[in-house]
Amino acid sequence: MTFKAAIWGASGMAGGEVLRILARHPDIKVECAVSKNKNRQFIWQTHPHLRDEFGTLTFCDHDEAFLKEVDIAFLAVPHGTAVSVIEKYLEKGTKVVDLSADVRLYSAKDYEKWYGSPHPNPDLLISAVYGLPELHGKEIKESNLVSGVGCNAACCILGLFPLAREGLIEEIRIEVRVGSSEAGATPTLGSHHPYRSRTLRVYEPFRHRHLAEILQELSLEEDAVTMTMTAVEIVRGAQMLAHIRLSEKVREGEIWRLYKNAYRDKPFLQLCPAKPAHLRLPEPKMVTGSNQAMTGFTLHEDGRRMLVVTAIDNLMKGAAGTAVQASNLMLGLNETEGLTMMPVYPV
Amino acid sequence: MTFKAAIWGASGMAGGEVLRILARHPDIKVECAVSKNKNRQFIWQTHPHLRDEFGTLTFCDHDEAFLKEVDIAFLAVPHGTAVSVIEKYLEKGTKVVDLSADVRLYSAKDYEKWYGSPHPNPDLLISAVYGLPELHGKEIKESNLVSGVGCNAACCILGLFPLAREGLIEEIRIEVRVGSSEAGATPTLGSHHPYRSRTLRVYEPFRHRHLAEILQELSLEEDAVTMTMTAVEIVRGAQMLAHIRLSEKVREGEIWRLYKNAYRDKPFLQLCPAKPAHLRLPEPKMVTGSNQAMTGFTLHEDGRRMLVVTAIDNLMKGAAGTAVQASNLMLGLNETEGLTMMPVYPV
Amino acid sequence: MTFKAAIWGASGMAGGEVLRILARHPDIKVECAVSKNKNRQFIWQTHPHLRDEFGTLTFCDHDEAFLKEVDIAFLAVPHGTAVSVIEKYLEKGTKVVDLSADVRLYSAKDYEKWYGSPHPNPDLLISAVYGLPELHGKEIKESNLVSGVGCNAACCILGLFPLAREGLIEEIRIEVRVGSSEAGATPTLGSHHPYRSRTLRVYEPFRHRHLAEILQELSLEEDAVTMTMTAVEIVRGAQMLAHIRLSEKVREGEIWRLYKNAYRDKPFLQLCPAKPAHLRLPEPKMVTGSNQAMTGFTLHEDGRRMLVVTAIDNLMKGAAGTAVQASNLMLGLNETEGLTMMPVYPV
Amino acid sequence: MTFKAAIWGASGMAGGEVLRILARHPDIKVECAVSKNKNRQFIWQTHPHLRDEFGTLTFCDHDEAFLKEVDIAFLAVPHGTAVSVIEKYLEKGTKVVDLSADVRLYSAKDYEKWYGSPHPNPDLLISAVYGLPELHGKEIKESNLVSGVGCNAACCILGLFPLAREGLIEEIRIEVRVGSSEAGATPTLGSHHPYRSRTLRVYEPFRHRHLAEILQELSLEEDAVTMTMTAVEIVRGAQMLAHIRLSEKVREGEIWRLYKNAYRDKPFLQLCPAKPAHLRLPEPKMVTGSNQAMTGFTLHEDGRRMLVVTAIDNLMKGAAGTAVQASNLMLGLNETEGLTMMPVYPV
Repeated sequence: MTFKAAIWGASGMAGGEVLRILARHPDIKVECAVSKNKNRQFIWQTHPHLRDEFGTLTFCDHDEAFLKEVDIAFLAVPHGTAVSVIEKYLEKGTKVVDLSADVRLYSAKDYEKWYGSPHPNPDLLISAVYGLPELHGKEIKESNLVSGVGCNAACCILGLFPLAREGLIEEIRIEVRVGSSEAGATPTLGSHHPYRSRTLRVYEPFRHRHLAEILQELSLEEDAVTMTMTAVEIVRGAQMLAHIRLSEKVREGEIWRLYKNAYRDKPFLQLCPAKPAHLRLPEPKMVTGSNQAMTGFTLHEDGRRMLVVTAIDNLMKGAAGTAVQASNLMLGLNETEGLTMMPVYPV
Repeated sequence: MTFKAAIWGASGMAGGEVLRILARHPDIKVECAVSKNKNRQFIWQTHPHLRDEFGTLTFCDHDEAFLKEVDIAFLAVPHGTAVSVIEKYLEKGTKVVDLSADVRLYSAKDYEKWYGSPHPNPDLLISAVYGLPELHGKEIKESNLVSGVGCNAACCILGLFPLAREGLIEEIRIEVRVGSSEAGATPTLGSHHPYRSRTLRVYEPFRHRHLAEILQELSLEEDAVTMTMTAVEIVRGAQMLAHIRLSEKVREGEIWRLYKNAYRDKPFLQLCPAKPAHLRLPEPKMVTGSNQAMTGFTLHEDGRRMLVVTAIDNLMKGAAGTAVQASNLMLGLNETEGLTMMPVYPV
Repeated sequence: MTFKAAIWGASGMAGGEVLRILARHPDIKVECAVSKNKNRQFIWQTHPHLRDEFGTLTFCDHDEAFLKEVDIAFLAVPHGTAVSVIEKYLEKGTKVVDLSADVRLYSAKDYEKWYGSPHPNPDLLISAVYGLPELHGKEIKESNLVSGVGCNAACCILGLFPLAREGLIEEIRIEVRVGSSEAGATPTLGSHHPYRSRTLRVYEPFRHRHLAEILQELSLEEDAVTMTMTAVEIVRGAQMLAHIRLSEKVREGEIWRLYKNAYRDKPFLQLCPAKPAHLRLPEPKMVTGSNQAMTGFTLHEDGRRMLVVTAIDNLMKGAAGTAVQASNLMLGLNETEGLTMMPVYPV
Repeated sequence: MTFKAAIWGASGMAGGEVLRILARHPDIKVECAVSKNKNRQFIWQTHPHLRDEFGTLTFCDHDEAFLKEVDIAFLAVPHGTAVSVIEKYLEKGTKVVDLSADVRLYSAKDYEKWYGSPHPNPDLLISAVYGLPELHGKEIKESNLVSGVGCNAACCILGLFPLAREGLIEEIRIEVRVGSSEAGATPTLGSHHPYRSRTLRVYEPFRHRHLAEILQELSLEEDAVTMTMTAVEIVRGAQMLAHIRLSEKVREGEIWRLYKNAYRDKPFLQLCPAKPAHLRLPEPKMVTGSNQAMTGFTLHEDGRRMLVVTAIDNLMKGAAGTAVQASNLMLGLNETEGLTMMPVYPV
């Protein structure tokens, strides 16, 4: 059986990546690609790499989208604009994966704190599941509404949950380095090539919105965490460096076992071996174009300080890849369906 | 049925790409990965993106390789070193795709002219087929020895054969821009990052070795062709700009038809539409990581001058991708088996 | 004596570069920096590299600018908007270097042909001098109105004038590769980092506006010239590759002498020696941040075909550097004043 | 009066940068450029940007170098090879700036700890001055032997000394991001363009050799400091992010005054203003090609945590620039002589 999908925000960066994945998905077919601005234009006029993929399919507008019967809708629309679309689809009985930040937080209070205005429909926050299949696979299978993940949040949560759930994180300082695709498809001064090229722009010194998701999913206290963001010269990719003060002294073997157990049966989570040293700490380059999250770590000789490094492709595991992974579960498919593409290395 | 493959030069750039492709190939399995220098090392110690792909498989040496029974051998070894390996495999009845330049030219005289020394086994040149399935699909199916292609040659031949076989090329000036992966995995002064970064290094003013293949496959006179090479700031990719003086005045519609007919039933050849103009002339960025060759053109208003632009990923369509495509045909498989991965865009 | 300068368009890319140069100029001082949009903002809020250079100087608006008494005005404003400013300054007896395209062409007919509308004040075209000191040093010294140069045009003219004035160019095909700073400081889809990064975008197949300047300055027939533009992954830099069919057979020594004679006493023109071969053909990387134009060539063995390659920093020799060089002459200063900075290599 | 200089290691990355600076230095002239490997070759054959700078000067070997009478010798030779050269020059009464790590540490015990073997001439460690003029200007003026600085160390020390000398640093976590030029001119696998391009390679998790200099100059306890190194996609540049736990609660104004006082009369140290926020935290891009060190900071709302960011051009302020600055003082010249070049921005 083939399921039909609608993609909203299909002319954007994350929406385009959902299209790219579904172009080869064996069981999900793109029924409509929604873009108000590009209505009636061919998809390849925006996404040249999709030239021969969707025939004469053109972007459609909101009204037309709702006329199409689909099994699942991917919403890659700006934060704050997803809620009304979600409501309509749920009413029709259509499953939704919302890549925006609108239903990622469980608490309406947290939403208001981090996004600066009250949530328009707090009931959705209660019914929605945070869309990281590695943590919430079972709930996702049974849900009609699943959030996408913040790309930086996904990178951090996947690298840290084995430690966090053991209560090992006493204090943590997170550095995240991100590529230019994270900011989406709309040109800005910050993304203007002469200024963005070769940049090392520290744009958040102590915290970033995605921290809300990290605190929620890892059950950490805000005071114990800082998060610094740096924009770097890559297009795709996010890399977390987490400097951790552990709550007790540990040995490398114990950490190793923790991660191995946590990552077992998680098809997209990879652990870098301790040796050779130069491959122990992963970089986005190693996973570009794939749905993998690669994690490595080093324990300080004092047994209390630790560096964890995780790398993902922000458009894949950090957005569209994880969204399709969640949709696979929601539709009763195998989690890895359509997501087994290899990284392109070197690139 | 699953076929078994040996890959020689598996720690190199093209050999690594064959590994990457075969990691997901439904019908060909890597039986041995040969690397003299890395003998006994795990594959992921060299190729970090292949970490979870080949289990505990280690590189092996030449002797061990010949002990393995395989159906097909991919040789991604330095020019001049393939012939003796080819001879051994053919003797054993094993099919060979030789990615080196050793059997690309049909004429021993041409080989000596372009490679500077007599060919050690000219009979091989006669029996080998030039491994571009788009031009020699039928011969490849029936052959036990198929060459790989020069990456720049493949880019040019695929972009130009529709014109060449109509005798339309009176004079042609080819510009090829290439990424750093073309030069292989061994560090040199030219590939040292501080010097290679942001380079626009014109390293061949009028001709390049791959011209030999272009002349052979397009039946052009050497005097009518120049080929200028520039190393540019990309890792993967080759782009041909061909400025052509046509032998007769033509109209755009005629050229359009020529290409459409020539590219029909060629699953990896894509033609860029004439509109919108900004997508008419392809760049490597649009095909990165895929086996596609994308071609666009513009006709000068005088009807006699023409610009043809073709873009490929040099490690895929310019090397490993085309090699696997040829091996599919040699093994009786569908040409596209294992090669339908999407481009990663933007990257 | 210190001269006072006004810079219009000072928040832009070329205007910012004039500021950068004048920050160290021994004889010219910035009196006002004009920017309508950034009026009242400190200069370093736009140009972080100029943080300690201009104290508390803020951008000013048009009215304020005209109140300042200055000796020379640099206009780095959008094409089509310079004429009225020029008229006012000339009336006041202020010398003007206009970096826009408004007074580069001598013929009003040519202007209309290449810029698509009649020139608003053709008399200015007659009185203005094309601001390339290497060709028009004497006229510039005596003029009150000097144009800037198109960056691509300057690169081509400086590399080709020794051949052109001997009538040696029978036919010529020009490739120009340009960095992202050429398009100015305003973000666009084409300059959005995810799309611009690693690009090889062919955006003009046969001609570019700057061709008008090239034809004018080199006295070439339009039919004998094509000009192809490619946007590449650099920020600063323009590189010309000119494939020439010579009007007669020549020997390398003759060409060598031609260039040596032509470049003698031209402090910013450098000729690459014929050996070693790998340094013969220059790239922008070798001149970044300096006012140099570096030229190399290779003669085909047939003595009739020739490749000339010239590299400049488009913001320096292609815009602000040449403008300051012209202003030096207009003010009676030494041509090289303030312009002797070394290239930054490697970068 | 013009002083004469010898440059050892002149074909390398730091030695080449000393050449680049001295090419425009008003009072120091290059008398000999030493390179064993490139003996007798013209300087521009290695450094294409120096083509017209040193006429027919060729690299010379060690013996020839010692025959030249010079006032000062810059040693940009590999670690461990400078001592014997220093000894000879000091014997002749020639002043020496040693850019290698051989005389940076005052304690022979520290040297052995960080460099793994006993120092061959500990007396030199006692007589040498650590060559950071911002901290040791007076001693440098009176010394005949001055060390160069570790590029990462210089970046950190300059950004942190105002806090350190007030005893404000209780605990500190340093992140340093470096460009590819730091590793010198010799190709390696790590600097091979396909692998180095777009990298985010964490190559030291907790400490780096340059930490020895930081501890020495800032009088910090090793236990209170970690230092993580990441190789990033730039050629020139080093950037420090220092996450500090302060020993007492402070207010932003106090920190601001501390830095202002410390940086007063330091011509190459720049402080980024607190507003606008996006320019508060500097990046190497803002100082490329100049001798500037730019520092900005943000205080956490808790008044105890702080982020300090400093950016330099590693070849300038991190190596050759600082060395020439020290030599100016040793020769009785103005500290800024030959070092006032502007940053090239954007690049």
